[in-house]
Amino acid sequence: MRNPANVAILGATGAVGVEVLKTLERRKFPVNKLILLASERSAGRHLEFRGGMHPVKAVTPSSFAEVDLAIFSAGATRSREFAPHAVKAGAVVVDNSSAFRMDPAIPLVVPEVNGGDLDRHRGIVANPNCTAAILSVPLWPLHRAAKIRRVVVSTYQSASGAGAKAMAELQSQTREVIAGKAATKEVFPHQIAFNVFSHNTKIAENGYNEEENKVIEETRKMFHEPGLAICVTCIRVPVLRAHSESVLIETERKLSPEEAREILSRAPGVKLVDDRARNHFPMPIEASGIDEVLVGRLREDPSHPNGLAMFLAGDQLLKGAALNAVQIAEMLLRR
Amino acid sequence: MRNPANVAILGATGAVGVEVLKTLERRKFPVNKLILLASERSAGRHLEFRGGMHPVKAVTPSSFAEVDLAIFSAGATRSREFAPHAVKAGAVVVDNSSAFRMDPAIPLVVPEVNGGDLDRHRGIVANPNCTAAILSVPLWPLHRAAKIRRVVVSTYQSASGAGAKAMAELQSQTREVIAGKAATKEVFPHQIAFNVFSHNTKIAENGYNEEENKVIEETRKMFHEPGLAICVTCIRVPVLRAHSESVLIETERKLSPEEAREILSRAPGVKLVDDRARNHFPMPIEASGIDEVLVGRLREDPSHPNGLAMFLAGDQLLKGAALNAVQIAEMLLRR
Repeated sequence: MRNPANVAILGATGAVGVEVLKTLERRKFPVNKLILLASERSAGRHLEFRGGMHPVKAVTPSSFAEVDLAIFSAGATRSREFAPHAVKAGAVVVDNSSAFRMDPAIPLVVPEVNGGDLDRHRGIVANPNCTAAILSVPLWPLHRAAKIRRVVVSTYQSASGAGAKAMAELQSQTREVIAGKAATKEVFPHQIAFNVFSHNTKIAENGYNEEENKVIEETRKMFHEPGLAICVTCIRVPVLRAHSESVLIETERKLSPEEAREILSRAPGVKLVDDRARNHFPMPIEASGIDEVLVGRLREDPSHPNGLAMFLAGDQLLKGAALNAVQIAEMLLRR
Repeated sequence: MRNPANVAILGATGAVGVEVLKTLERRKFPVNKLILLASERSAGRHLEFRGGMHPVKAVTPSSFAEVDLAIFSAGATRSREFAPHAVKAGAVVVDNSSAFRMDPAIPLVVPEVNGGDLDRHRGIVANPNCTAAILSVPLWPLHRAAKIRRVVVSTYQSASGAGAKAMAELQSQTREVIAGKAATKEVFPHQIAFNVFSHNTKIAENGYNEEENKVIEETRKMFHEPGLAICVTCIRVPVLRAHSESVLIETERKLSPEEAREILSRAPGVKLVDDRARNHFPMPIEASGIDEVLVGRLREDPSHPNGLAMFLAGDQLLKGAALNAVQIAEMLLRR
């Protein structure tokens, strides 16, 4: 990849696109030319980058001429339509959608976990589902140390995972409920203000919703453990932007909370927040806007000889999406 | 017990006390004389019952003369102080606090689970912790059918569990955050509006907080299974009054989701809400104000041959407190 690179962002005006732009700026990614792309509806707007205003253009098959890096955050349908054009034009696509994640020929990467898989990319790299990405960061070093046999996860997922409109819906519904009015539902099928509900994706044959099946399959793929036992329950909570997860692991070799704490204290992308005396553990409001996945509440699982429980929180828009995409781009640039 | 009974309510002005009063009225509990008791601070107020206004009096050791049934919801310290006086006066105490729950001589009862334990009461019956009570109702019939070997629970607990002041704090913080102000923390140690955090009780030596240890110990006691393997993570969410729980069980005999659904559809105190096509499952806003514990999302656990996952929601103030206490009283009256 050329350095500095010509960078295209598809879905530039969405919740993730906006964070991609901020993250490129904050991490001083070497950008030569910046091309902001979106649907017809958002074209004509301008977004700020490094002090200058940049126009958002409607994406077409010929938008990718001279582009070295294309970060896609516009949903699976647009990814399937435009990724082949970008690759043909010579760009590497880092795709935030679910379009290519489970394609065996396409690497699915969290740099801290399986950055090495980037070696075999052929133009497209998939960015994992946010819940899977956040989960993988603290679990990988524990897996390397003691081999995880089973994972049980229950999530506390923020509105941001459903985009900027969902975040606005949480705020507007909250205002309505506080004022004694009925909540207006547009984005989510159920009231999100002062409520929790099972993740709003379709339930598959196996009884798991799409989000849960993504966590299962994507974790297995990133860990190169096709048979890893995982049970996951994905739940929406009235939180704006970071996802939290209650996690139980069973390991081949017994891992004490002390050893896990030691491993996690020096693991990349992880911040230990585990203060029992002050009752201070990972919280979404403290994970919002930061790069690291917070992990804490490390304790023995009294229900299994090799069980270890923990709680984590990570920014859905950063490590769960934009940051991980930019980290992949940085790794590609260094190769 | 005399029928109709002279009924005293200690902690009548608290979140649970108010629900006890409403529940006695709604269920037409045969009340002869009603004695409302509280601390000095709340004495002098009046509460409505069956169309009449009743004065709240400051509790003293002699408040229980002629009382047949005393429902206590004023915290463990007051229960320890006043329960002996009530018992001495001839009353049966149904105690909502944690004061007597783990006393081997005192029955801890959810009528649908272990109503038979009421036979051995000697003046005091303990009402379980709200999270444990809600969990026990759907788990008990499954335990009877297939013997539960292990339970893994992650909770989504409402503000009501910390009382009326905590519910008010969730509302006032929400208003502050929506207005762009900092959240004022008085009841909870962390911001509850638009946030989730590990339950605000002290962490014991074993790494589990008081709430979690209550769920473990009380479930074992009610089920008469002192060795039942349970791992629990208690988390507060910005919901007003019903608790939700993500639950995984491992049973001795394999229990299919179909069989579990069949068992739960005719279990007392349970309402099945398990509509995959409409993505409609238990939610705290739908559990609020109703007697049944909602249960759904029943599905095989792909990570264990005999695992079964589910999600439930129950009113913390009703089945988690006031309703269960009144149901115990009804059972005592029938004996």
